[in-house]
Amino acid sequence: MSSGVWSTKYSAGLEGCWAITDTDGISMKKALEDTGYLGGTPCDYRENGLECHFELHIEQGPKLEATNKKVGVVTSVQAMKWNKIRVSGLEGHAGTQPMDTRSDALVTASKLITAVNDTAKVTGLGVATVGVISNDTQSQATIPSGVEFIIDTRCSTDQMLDDLCTAIFKKFDEIIQKENNSTSYHIESTWGLPESLFHNHCIETVRSAAIDEVGESKVTDMKSGAGHDSAWTSKVVKTSMIFVPSKDGISHNPTEYTSPEDCALGAQVLLQAVLRYDEGVKIGTIS
Amino acid sequence: MSSGVWSTKYSAGLEGCWAITDTDGISMKKALEDTGYLGGTPCDYRENGLECHFELHIEQGPKLEATNKKVGVVTSVQAMKWNKIRVSGLEGHAGTQPMDTRSDALVTASKLITAVNDTAKVTGLGVATVGVISNDTQSQATIPSGVEFIIDTRCSTDQMLDDLCTAIFKKFDEIIQKENNSTSYHIESTWGLPESLFHNHCIETVRSAAIDEVGESKVTDMKSGAGHDSAWTSKVVKTSMIFVPSKDGISHNPTEYTSPEDCALGAQVLLQAVLRYDEGVKIGTIS
Repeated sequence: MSSGVWSTKYSAGLEGCWAITDTDGISMKKALEDTGYLGGTPCDYRENGLECHFELHIEQGPKLEATNKKVGVVTSVQAMKWNKIRVSGLEGHAGTQPMDTRSDALVTASKLITAVNDTAKVTGLGVATVGVISNDTQSQATIPSGVEFIIDTRCSTDQMLDDLCTAIFKKFDEIIQKENNSTSYHIESTWGLPESLFHNHCIETVRSAAIDEVGESKVTDMKSGAGHDSAWTSKVVKTSMIFVPSKDGISHNPTEYTSPEDCALGAQVLLQAVLRYDEGVKIGTIS
Repeated sequence: MSSGVWSTKYSAGLEGCWAITDTDGISMKKALEDTGYLGGTPCDYRENGLECHFELHIEQGPKLEATNKKVGVVTSVQAMKWNKIRVSGLEGHAGTQPMDTRSDALVTASKLITAVNDTAKVTGLGVATVGVISNDTQSQATIPSGVEFIIDTRCSTDQMLDDLCTAIFKKFDEIIQKENNSTSYHIESTWGLPESLFHNHCIETVRSAAIDEVGESKVTDMKSGAGHDSAWTSKVVKTSMIFVPSKDGISHNPTEYTSPEDCALGAQVLLQAVLRYDEGVKIGTIS
């Protein structure tokens, strides 16, 4: 959020982000106040700017390890969209409602989730994931009438992302029509981040620093699949990123691991890139 | 639970039922004590018996209304089983993990839930429902690694129920093999109720009372799709049930409705059935 607000390009803005509440109803602003982190520094690049922004991160994917590389020179962050889907049906008794008269929202949702996965695979446009699902029904003896899930879609370009979402929702419509079980779905777009292209000078600076550290054969250009602060900073200041390998490509999991040696290497590349960029520049965040 | 314990046929028994806790960890026994409902009457038919058990209930299904009947003479309760399924995969980052290397538990679970529905329809053996689902993952940007859901299966006979469950799990194995995405599933049987046949004398008593009230054309024999106390009492005392119509067949839903007239009619049939059964018998529960 912070980098999004700072860039002034995140539509929610400062007030919108402050107003976001956790599951206990505590707002972001209240939590920042309570923990003494609200602060007085303007969160706006125009008042509190940077010359450039370099970000070191673990890859969070399997590509560096699989190709035996040590440093990824990140050239862009892929475009992303989150859409919340609500499937509506009609509750009924699991023991008495005949199979052919059911309007089962979870059966329809299951087919839609399968279609999300299949469509990403078949089109090859990008990745699509359903990470969270919730079901209004809390009884095993009741036919579900309301199911919500969120689709996370990511592609190299904004156009590919639009095409992937269109293909998924076209498939949804086909499923609803074929099922013909009086279930329906509703889409709510909850978040998005356009494709972010990093700055050539920053990219070249990182590349040359990396090659000097580990040699050309261990360095590769790559796109970031995950979202990062740099996606936002790149909208307003010169930006690039450095990736180091993730063991087995695992991330968002307790077994996520990058060796201390690879972390130190990344930090060294970061330092050298900043020094090469220009003497005496103001140094940005290190995540 | 009470009728199951009273019949001594419910495997959990009195102590097992008392030990069951709600989502706040409060045991059944503690809740009964706290509300003054624990009581001292033995919950055991051998110490606190009944001559017979008649139960009046709404149908909770669409059949009486659809066939323009007023009273259902219930001859049996179908067999039921609940199986909890846990699907296991591997977490990963939604933006970086390529589609073809994912072990997505929710995608597999979606295919299994679809198979539950399809198998019940295709085999025609009974009904099968997934009413509850839960996902370990709480992040839209994470590939799910653990999903649980409960299958409610019900058939006219114990043999048909076994056959339906076997057909569902055979389909599960085919899906897991075909997916070949390193996901797996585990079955835990959580509850079951064998087919319950009601007693001929009680059935005939209800049928004659109903015919006298509304005429033969408005009375029909039927099986109960839902579970009832009578399923348990029928294991140890002479038992039957009376059904009255449910509007639009809807149940387990706030719009569940049976008219006051139909309720009164049911009560009248119940009373007449009891009087016909024998003079001076001890009268059972009216749910």
